[in-house]
Amino acid sequence: MIDIIHRVGIQAPPAKVYAALATVEGVAAWWSRETRGVSQPGGTIEFRFLKPSGEQIGGMGMEVITLTPNKEVRWRVRSGPEEWVGTDIGFELSEADGYTIVLFGHRSWRAASEFTAHCSMKWATFMLSLKELVETGKGRPSPHDVKIDNWN
Amino acid sequence: MIDIIHRVGIQAPPAKVYAALATVEGVAAWWSRETRGVSQPGGTIEFRFLKPSGEQIGGMGMEVITLTPNKEVRWRVRSGPEEWVGTDIGFELSEADGYTIVLFGHRSWRAASEFTAHCSMKWATFMLSLKELVETGKGRPSPHDVKIDNWN
Repeated sequence: MIDIIHRVGIQAPPAKVYAALATVEGVAAWWSRETRGVSQPGGTIEFRFLKPSGEQIGGMGMEVITLTPNKEVRWRVRSGPEEWVGTDIGFELSEADGYTIVLFGHRSWRAASEFTAHCSMKWATFMLSLKELVETGKGRPSPHDVKIDNWN
Repeated sequence: MIDIIHRVGIQAPPAKVYAALATVEGVAAWWSRETRGVSQPGGTIEFRFLKPSGEQIGGMGMEVITLTPNKEVRWRVRSGPEEWVGTDIGFELSEADGYTIVLFGHRSWRAASEFTAHCSMKWATFMLSLKELVETGKGRPSPHDVKIDNWN
């Protein structure tokens, strides 16, 4: 099994970081503006990714598995790219040196492909977007996300 | 074995990207300004990472394993953080849609730790630095690199 893991530190209290991960409004402000659904355990959140022109690049649906206030958010991918279905996406929070540390994992990929490598880079840019959102009030969610290659 | 993999696309010919990866001057302009050594197969390149104050954060030495013009650069870590020694760092180049695609891999970590997750994020910011360097002439090498957490 292949895991993408990233670590960022955000200069804000855990509650503020958690709110950006555990609510539909929060996630819409750093990952994709096109976020809908119910962020409760057993609920489903749907994401769509658009080009600035409005054309859809892709989308996915997640079941919310874990919501532990100020500690952990975990989703399981139920629909979307074939490589993503069945994988787990998690955010674990802790505190160190005045930062809230986010340990991000997109785990249990069945193989490592160029698409995995693309997603690893995109997740890194979205972790920077999350950090910017919480620290400055403004993230870079799709369709205004950082473009990294010919795929997105 | 744990691998960090990232994919970026750079709007420039492969030869320009290769020059930024295969020469000491090139690497110094996107990864660390404190880069010394001989970029030839069997040669050694030494890197130091400093705080903006000049204090050293860390350093490492790589043996140059592969230099295939416009195609591949590969190093093996011979000294530095214990977790890095013996791992492989590689850059494979290809072309698609007017981009030079860089498939980056820092491979054969013996375990996945928070430090691995930190390094995955930092590598992503350095891949963006490489992209900026080649596309605009200006990268963000250490000590002016993007800071991501309480470690660096």
